[in-house]
Amino acid sequence: MDETILLAHGSGGQMSHGLIEGLFLKYLGNPILAALDDAAVVDPPGASGGGRLAFTTDSYVISPIFFPGGDIGKLAVCGTVNDLAMSGATPIYLSAGFILEEGLPLAELERVVASMAETARAAGVSIVAGDTKVVEHGKADRLFINTAGIGRVPAGLELGNDRVRPGDLILLSGTVGDHGMTIMSQREGLRFSSPLQSDCAPLNGLVTAMLAALLAADDAGWGALHCMRDPTRGGVATVLNEIAARSGVGIEVEEAAIPVREAVRAACELLGLDPLYVANEGKLLAFVSPEGAEPLLAAMRAHADGREAAIIGRVTAEHAGRVALRTVLGARRVLSMLAGEQLPRIC
Amino acid sequence: MDETILLAHGSGGQMSHGLIEGLFLKYLGNPILAALDDAAVVDPPGASGGGRLAFTTDSYVISPIFFPGGDIGKLAVCGTVNDLAMSGATPIYLSAGFILEEGLPLAELERVVASMAETARAAGVSIVAGDTKVVEHGKADRLFINTAGIGRVPAGLELGNDRVRPGDLILLSGTVGDHGMTIMSQREGLRFSSPLQSDCAPLNGLVTAMLAALLAADDAGWGALHCMRDPTRGGVATVLNEIAARSGVGIEVEEAAIPVREAVRAACELLGLDPLYVANEGKLLAFVSPEGAEPLLAAMRAHADGREAAIIGRVTAEHAGRVALRTVLGARRVLSMLAGEQLPRIC
Repeated sequence: MDETILLAHGSGGQMSHGLIEGLFLKYLGNPILAALDDAAVVDPPGASGGGRLAFTTDSYVISPIFFPGGDIGKLAVCGTVNDLAMSGATPIYLSAGFILEEGLPLAELERVVASMAETARAAGVSIVAGDTKVVEHGKADRLFINTAGIGRVPAGLELGNDRVRPGDLILLSGTVGDHGMTIMSQREGLRFSSPLQSDCAPLNGLVTAMLAALLAADDAGWGALHCMRDPTRGGVATVLNEIAARSGVGIEVEEAAIPVREAVRAACELLGLDPLYVANEGKLLAFVSPEGAEPLLAAMRAHADGREAAIIGRVTAEHAGRVALRTVLGARRVLSMLAGEQLPRIC
Repeated sequence: MDETILLAHGSGGQMSHGLIEGLFLKYLGNPILAALDDAAVVDPPGASGGGRLAFTTDSYVISPIFFPGGDIGKLAVCGTVNDLAMSGATPIYLSAGFILEEGLPLAELERVVASMAETARAAGVSIVAGDTKVVEHGKADRLFINTAGIGRVPAGLELGNDRVRPGDLILLSGTVGDHGMTIMSQREGLRFSSPLQSDCAPLNGLVTAMLAALLAADDAGWGALHCMRDPTRGGVATVLNEIAARSGVGIEVEEAAIPVREAVRAACELLGLDPLYVANEGKLLAFVSPEGAEPLLAAMRAHADGREAAIIGRVTAEHAGRVALRTVLGARRVLSMLAGEQLPRIC
């Protein structure tokens, strides 16, 4: 295999086949992908058990492509797995579309694909469809990855941005800002005494534990859970604003209740950023009616991906469409949606 | 709305929302997409009627993004619809992931998205999930689009690259090379007396007519159809080689039977290209046992997208894994898979 990506790797001919068989199938191989048909033909997820289908897509253009805690391949699997999990779905099948820049070292591509394979195994999903394109040097930036995903939403579970109601409590699964500040520090060449690390992780295991806990609770059940979201681009503040607008409710958040790692806080202060606007890649927000909050919080804290889970606020019928933050100093201010761009190419 | 794409359009914040609501939903809007949840939750295609699920993905990086007969948006819908149709699936849901270069005129994006909407309507599919990323000027080339698609394969229909058998006849739905030579001529600034035009079209209507004809035939049925492929990158020659290798069969093709438009032939001669290696975006190859060939050919010729359909060759048990071409002069030569790259960024 040649040492760098050439335009001919995207030709559809011999070199494309060499790349597919020598690299992609080596790591991602399964009987469905290996058939190399135009489309993967699979059993419909959960056709027998009922339920609906969840379908999502995301492109990943993060720079740098390798960073503490992950890489663009791990991120591309986690991000789409998490979007499915937030809809309540069990992620099952993923597709992967690569756009490669001519001259990309093959060793870097191999490292990324191996990381995708490892993350897919950890999340319990199969990559069953793929595509590779190559563009001239200078017409992309190393590599971009798109993943689309299919999952199964169990019958009886209904979540949505528009289902949040006054009285709901807001749970956050852990610290905020880790991913965004890790990327930012890498780009700026910043060093801190305690190193920053992206929180990039698949959240479907945590969600499974949360749903099981609600089912097992005496007075809750799935009906108590109204919405889940992973606060990626735009951070917690932007997701809260989206929910406030879509559900037509007010939201009140306690700044002191939101866990932030010391190194993240330091990096944010240095760069003049607010951690509530910084991207996360392994955290979720859950909106739940009061009777569900206790079992949900206990289940989250008992899971490796939710140890620092906390109730960070509540939903009100007042100031509909707006998010209010009570600061650590006791002041109250409006937390608006992200305006402009804080950290381009964070995912 | 601003006149060009800014990095802030990819922030996930206010400007992202403006772009989504002001442009994407304006053209592509449907209740599922408009919910703007992390994943689209939909009824599983054909869960009641049985059948399996087809899932596919492709990224589109074509340059130029507008060309006679289409644009990158039309292509992104047709390409994924066609991959689903080749598996025998009825295409139902599409996702769309955009990677935009900072500085892209919004009017160009709008034209592309409007074209996607029109093509999706024509093909009878809904775009239910989307994503937009923006990269700095010079880190992409105008815009790249990924589409993934879901379709339903009816119970009893089994197609695949490895199901072709000696004795099968090979049907081609029309002229070859139109898409590739149109793009090439645009790039090279070539003019011909009869203008070239891409054949970019959704093929699911043609496939539906073909499947209906087989079902209605006295002595055929779906079992007669073994494989369908759309000869995109690498052209007819590359697909035939893939089939020969995957099915372990020999293939014989008659050059004289393959329809090529006069302008395409002229452009190929001028540029020293073989139309059998040039990309198509609205043509299909079907491998069918002899009893199915007549009803299939009649159905194709009766459909607007298959008027020039022809039987171009047959499958043999000899020279397994290789494709032989009998030229118009009566000579016989091996038609190998595309080596190197003929036309980068053709799709």
